[in-house]
Amino acid sequence: MDEKTVERKYVHKGRIINLRVDKVLLPNGREALREIVEHPGAVAVVPVLPDGRIVLVRQFRKPVEEALLEIPAGKLEKGENAETCAMRELKEETGFRAGKLEKILRFFPSPGFSDECIHLFKATELQKGEKNTEHDELIETVFLSASEIVKLIEEGKIKDGKTIIGTFYLLSTLPPSS
Amino acid sequence: MDEKTVERKYVHKGRIINLRVDKVLLPNGREALREIVEHPGAVAVVPVLPDGRIVLVRQFRKPVEEALLEIPAGKLEKGENAETCAMRELKEETGFRAGKLEKILRFFPSPGFSDECIHLFKATELQKGEKNTEHDELIETVFLSASEIVKLIEEGKIKDGKTIIGTFYLLSTLPPSS
Repeated sequence: MDEKTVERKYVHKGRIINLRVDKVLLPNGREALREIVEHPGAVAVVPVLPDGRIVLVRQFRKPVEEALLEIPAGKLEKGENAETCAMRELKEETGFRAGKLEKILRFFPSPGFSDECIHLFKATELQKGEKNTEHDELIETVFLSASEIVKLIEEGKIKDGKTIIGTFYLLSTLPPSS
Repeated sequence: MDEKTVERKYVHKGRIINLRVDKVLLPNGREALREIVEHPGAVAVVPVLPDGRIVLVRQFRKPVEEALLEIPAGKLEKGENAETCAMRELKEETGFRAGKLEKILRFFPSPGFSDECIHLFKATELQKGEKNTEHDELIETVFLSASEIVKLIEEGKIKDGKTIIGTFYLLSTLPPSS
């Protein structure tokens, strides 16, 4: 079960993503075209305060033309490992430093057309410092409990996939009493 | 909090996705470039059998160069509504017809670079019929309980975002006894 590349053509090599079209040979002998977005990969962090609240960020997302409430996240820099990136993005977007960072899981948000892989972490022992947003980022910090987030997911007010995964995962690992 | 489009340039209009680069004006007066993948949108279905097992499909995903275990899913055809698409993809990929289809939620898997929206459904009252896969799809059907799926997610063997969201959502809505 695989698809051998017969021909590969780049249509865009961009600042963040590349787009290529692969002609592939299917196991049944036919050929097909695959449009593929190459992405550097990303991290997302569920930052949990001592009182159990989660630190979220609200920022405008041009592709969907609205401001979304999300867990802090960002793209991997060239050669950067996921832990370093997670610490950096958390600090830049929220000002918090994490005393403890735990891997949760890795997943593909859109494997039908992109190779993007998101590395998901849980951050605890948070200490507040200064935000350091890039010049083109305008980000608001929001604090919500996991159950408040679940309510917003069910109401359709939180629509970001990685935020839904991070919240459900956190809740699934909490002891039943909490 | 928004980003006005100053200039828009299409670099690719493809079979499934388009890629454009928008020059935007930020609220702070600066300009920035946004690479945006336009996607027609998709559906994903959590098909639940009377015994509680979930119907999954395994298929090769060229962007990530591996076969992934996922819930049935597919792209919206032009003008197609999400319910019709969900029924069609479920039938094509697994052979099952759903007597009952419930909306779960809608989410953006990758709002940082794509407008893709996934409409997630739960399908029950399933009746087996014939699969009708497209010529370039080679799809294997797999039946697993929700707890088996969670184990595979935790082991890093299920890596598809929509499958993780669908499974966690299903579990979060089950009565505590099940």
